[in-house]
Amino acid sequence: MRLAIDAMGGDNAPEEIVKGALEAIGKMENLHITLVGDKDKITPYLIDYDQTKIEVIHTTEVITGEDEPVRAVRRKKNSSLVLMANEVKEGRADACISAGNTGALMSAGLFVVGRIPGIDRPALSPTLPTIDGKGFLLLDVGANVDAKAQHLVQYAIMGSVYTEKVRSIQNPTVGLLNIGTENGKGNDLTKKTFEQLKEAPIHFVGNVEARDLLDGVADVVVTDGFTGNVTLKTIEGTAGAMFSMLKETFMGSFKTKLAAGMMKSDLKGLKNKLDYSEYGGAGLFGLAAPVIKAHGSSNSRAIYSAIKQASHMVENHVTDTIKETIEKMDVEEKE
Amino acid sequence: MRLAIDAMGGDNAPEEIVKGALEAIGKMENLHITLVGDKDKITPYLIDYDQTKIEVIHTTEVITGEDEPVRAVRRKKNSSLVLMANEVKEGRADACISAGNTGALMSAGLFVVGRIPGIDRPALSPTLPTIDGKGFLLLDVGANVDAKAQHLVQYAIMGSVYTEKVRSIQNPTVGLLNIGTENGKGNDLTKKTFEQLKEAPIHFVGNVEARDLLDGVADVVVTDGFTGNVTLKTIEGTAGAMFSMLKETFMGSFKTKLAAGMMKSDLKGLKNKLDYSEYGGAGLFGLAAPVIKAHGSSNSRAIYSAIKQASHMVENHVTDTIKETIEKMDVEEKE
Repeated sequence: MRLAIDAMGGDNAPEEIVKGALEAIGKMENLHITLVGDKDKITPYLIDYDQTKIEVIHTTEVITGEDEPVRAVRRKKNSSLVLMANEVKEGRADACISAGNTGALMSAGLFVVGRIPGIDRPALSPTLPTIDGKGFLLLDVGANVDAKAQHLVQYAIMGSVYTEKVRSIQNPTVGLLNIGTENGKGNDLTKKTFEQLKEAPIHFVGNVEARDLLDGVADVVVTDGFTGNVTLKTIEGTAGAMFSMLKETFMGSFKTKLAAGMMKSDLKGLKNKLDYSEYGGAGLFGLAAPVIKAHGSSNSRAIYSAIKQASHMVENHVTDTIKETIEKMDVEEKE
Repeated sequence: MRLAIDAMGGDNAPEEIVKGALEAIGKMENLHITLVGDKDKITPYLIDYDQTKIEVIHTTEVITGEDEPVRAVRRKKNSSLVLMANEVKEGRADACISAGNTGALMSAGLFVVGRIPGIDRPALSPTLPTIDGKGFLLLDVGANVDAKAQHLVQYAIMGSVYTEKVRSIQNPTVGLLNIGTENGKGNDLTKKTFEQLKEAPIHFVGNVEARDLLDGVADVVVTDGFTGNVTLKTIEGTAGAMFSMLKETFMGSFKTKLAAGMMKSDLKGLKNKLDYSEYGGAGLFGLAAPVIKAHGSSNSRAIYSAIKQASHMVENHVTDTIKETIEKMDVEEKE
């Protein structure tokens, strides 16, 4: 198994990226990692490791968070992100990971790595936390903002394959994010998608509502990239706002400070429960090889999770299974 | 000021509805309320009140939460909700309030009360809480799920007029809910809307992201009814999930129970801060008279808030101001 990692992407690069890679090399077998980035900045963190298992491709060019994604990928041909994608394209890596510019990664995924034949649009797919700790896959959260019904059907298939193969959930339930649970609810897109999902080779459980997402209403929830992005950011924003208000409440008086102190570790547990870096990064599904977007604020732990996730996707042939399922559907439709 | 209220709508009808009406009559001047519903069920709660200020229109027909909205309004002509809307249509009431079936109220608003000339689609517009306690108006949250750019521009105008006249915020800021703050971000709808909002007679502050909503990023946030509904329910769902997890954390051990007990009243304050019934109900903007949707679980306090809200809308001529602003825009466009 060979993974390429953008060592310069994310708020804590390269230190946390390199540390995450070293942790993975130490714990996982048959793993080779190619770190792409500035050798001078990477080497200080490359200590005590098996030199046959990590190599560095040196480049000083970087795509930043401020770069316009499509243009950056086109022009910064020697950036760590583009060279990383190139390793996959040239067959020297089985999958790749970056915590850098999300749009640029999607763009490099599409134009450098390329799509699975039959998949119209890739989907950005994070696993989000649920109260019971099981989590659910939400897709798409922004790769494709003007989606059509057939795109959402492909998301449902890709999400199901991933959830079954990597998250080991048999026959995962798939819900369509909608504004009511009854049949016939929604806008033009969801009404059309609902009819098509009924015919798809998945375990479709119908419409699901946004207020039930964190209760674990379905293992896989499909929606267009615009709505998915707003949903993801609303969850983040609401949780963040509640934590600030909670903090304010705790700091309100001597009594509340004392009470907060008494349950500090318990409250930290609550925060961890909502921390979705434990579930790995967001997969960019539908590409010719696994491409993982790790959170921009990833620490070494999150990078390690993303490496495990990418490895599982490769080992369990997620890409090939998606390809075969789509091919089979196309054949059946033509018959 | 004459208000018509559906006494049979909502989970706590008619008791809490009647009690809210009595509270309003006791506290507000020049207010007359017409309660529409089953006299036998209403009368037991009608005690100690000024009989010149409340009248009851008797009917036993009710639209329930399970009724299909459009059909219910068409067929149940003697339901409390339809008769209430009729009071407004016939000029016997200046505004109306229901905590019943949201879809049926929208339908009755559209077909019985009617639209303001020049407004293409009404918008359902709740005021949501922010960390600083100021709140913001989100519209539309589901009256019109396949919105066009010009609808969102009308929402921006209606929301601005309401916020200025009723919430007393001068020159309120208006944001467009989008998946990034930069110009040019978004799907077809938001890109088109952005250009039109720049020309509209409002204080447009550009794109706003879902993660900043509860931080009070704008006084008025416009979006299509599908996205708005998902956003609203995601906020509700995330807050609800966090409260359950918090409760679980508190019940975890003797120590946490003790700590929770010490700060019980403070935590209740936090919950109240997120309770948007304090801000009144969701206005159905764009209709020929104020129509307010009170939350289905409204208690007497929420009904009282909704009554104050409807009164302020009437007193401050919100409907006429919207009408004049739209007329003026149409004239300018033709010039």
